[in-house]
Amino acid sequence: MSDIDVHVCEVGLRDGLQMLSTFVPTATKLEWIRAEAAAGMREIEVTSFVPPKLVPQFVDAADVVQGALAIAGLTVLGLAPNLKGAERGVELGVHKLNFVMSVSRTHNLKNVRREREESVADFRRIADMLRTLPAERRPRLIGGLSTALGCSYEGPIAPDDVRRYAAALAEAGADEILVADTVGYADPNTVRSVFRQVMAEVPELPVGAHFHDTRGLGLANVTAALDCGVRRFDASLAGLGGCQFAPGATGNIVMEDLCFLLDSMGLRTGVNLEALVAVREIVARALPDTPLYGGLGRAGLPRGYVPAAQRAAAHSC
Amino acid sequence: MSDIDVHVCEVGLRDGLQMLSTFVPTATKLEWIRAEAAAGMREIEVTSFVPPKLVPQFVDAADVVQGALAIAGLTVLGLAPNLKGAERGVELGVHKLNFVMSVSRTHNLKNVRREREESVADFRRIADMLRTLPAERRPRLIGGLSTALGCSYEGPIAPDDVRRYAAALAEAGADEILVADTVGYADPNTVRSVFRQVMAEVPELPVGAHFHDTRGLGLANVTAALDCGVRRFDASLAGLGGCQFAPGATGNIVMEDLCFLLDSMGLRTGVNLEALVAVREIVARALPDTPLYGGLGRAGLPRGYVPAAQRAAAHSC
Repeated sequence: MSDIDVHVCEVGLRDGLQMLSTFVPTATKLEWIRAEAAAGMREIEVTSFVPPKLVPQFVDAADVVQGALAIAGLTVLGLAPNLKGAERGVELGVHKLNFVMSVSRTHNLKNVRREREESVADFRRIADMLRTLPAERRPRLIGGLSTALGCSYEGPIAPDDVRRYAAALAEAGADEILVADTVGYADPNTVRSVFRQVMAEVPELPVGAHFHDTRGLGLANVTAALDCGVRRFDASLAGLGGCQFAPGATGNIVMEDLCFLLDSMGLRTGVNLEALVAVREIVARALPDTPLYGGLGRAGLPRGYVPAAQRAAAHSC
Repeated sequence: MSDIDVHVCEVGLRDGLQMLSTFVPTATKLEWIRAEAAAGMREIEVTSFVPPKLVPQFVDAADVVQGALAIAGLTVLGLAPNLKGAERGVELGVHKLNFVMSVSRTHNLKNVRREREESVADFRRIADMLRTLPAERRPRLIGGLSTALGCSYEGPIAPDDVRRYAAALAEAGADEILVADTVGYADPNTVRSVFRQVMAEVPELPVGAHFHDTRGLGLANVTAALDCGVRRFDASLAGLGGCQFAPGATGNIVMEDLCFLLDSMGLRTGVNLEALVAVREIVARALPDTPLYGGLGRAGLPRGYVPAAQRAAAHSC
């Protein structure tokens, strides 16, 4: 039996840093990763395998991955924008590769200069390459669908399109599907509708949610996704993040508040909330000019708060 | 048939200002009230009838109420801490009086120096006084239960206590019950549990929710309350607010984000979202050193956003 009920994945080191002009030193990234893993975080997307010329922030991908892989029990993820990036991730030994295409045609063209069908073909090339690897060297492959709940260029996105591309990535070889509200357009009703349709379309795969808190609805959308049975969520420490091709997009949902939401609902994440909040200090020192979001970090835990894991243990006595 | 689905009540002028040492000029308060009413806000808690010596912010209660009452269609609320305050509210002609007691014994003692049963007795004296008035001069009476979902002094609050005091206020003469998470301790599960119990206890009365966003869970809790059938919510523009007797309590849920949440779910509030966001400028000018919260104010509406009222009208064609 698993000791956690919901999987959370820290994406701040990738989604949170990709837009920043400030280079965060490798040692600081590893300090952050180690501290968050020590707080109980089991999955961390540590870097992106984009060409360093495009995003200098990730020039140290090899060192960051190497350092992260040395942490016992941590699942190390990297973003692979294409086959070359995926090959680099395999070479470095990441446990999971995250490939993202946009359901919005316009956003996909702006972001990766590809028609959506070309992106599906790119994904298939990665999946085919991974299948040639021996099982012990083969990372799991996440098929990410960004702008799945709305797009800054196109506005609303047809749920049918999300379903169709989820099916296409599943057919091509995805081990997981990740549905992303890249620009914070989702509301709880749309979340329920889209996630129910996607989960019905790919019942054999785990479906995760990646929400942004652009208009304050991030955690409301998490509760809607929980209602549908979603048990995988991305978030970033202090709500760092955004997307340079998505005007007005602000940060990811705040990891501390997500973990507090889940834990307070009795859903174990494996994360120690106080230790997680303490990791903010590392980020605050590294990025003194970047606003850190989040309620738990500001207010602390409620008095007399009993973590979900302890409540669960008490119940089983 | 009503043209709105959910009642929202602006409490920023009372809950948002009561802790501020800066006196907001009466003209500015009225500019705020007028602009928000023009944006479609139908209920505004405009002041508190506490002794001005205790809270100088509300020294201008008479002028503020008089100005607010001149606005056609606006329901004007005032907080009545006791019988004397209620009498003052009646004299000034408010449409609704809001009386608040704490379900937490410790918080009630610190906040109003009363045992909870004494507060119920105070409430009964107000209700009895109101019954002596002719119907056209009689304001509706809200029975508010603060710290109903947790207390900074006591920690968790027994749902049975919330139910019990809701029943006591209903029996004494409340026209509405308002359940408040004064210090932001609630999670969606607790919200569902407490609101279901309270609504079952006082089925004849509307039950509203007053959430704070202290730990980021405010709108997640709203979605949980919506699931229970709650259709009345307090919030404050830009998330102003707090409580001096509740350490760590930060602002109310952000009105703009609440209205966006509801509207995006197809629930009409009567509020024009863009006009509401524009009211922030009045508050920003009046309180340049006070942080203004909220996602919608920062990011604006999604591209191609169609308000719920227009979607409803299109459906009925």
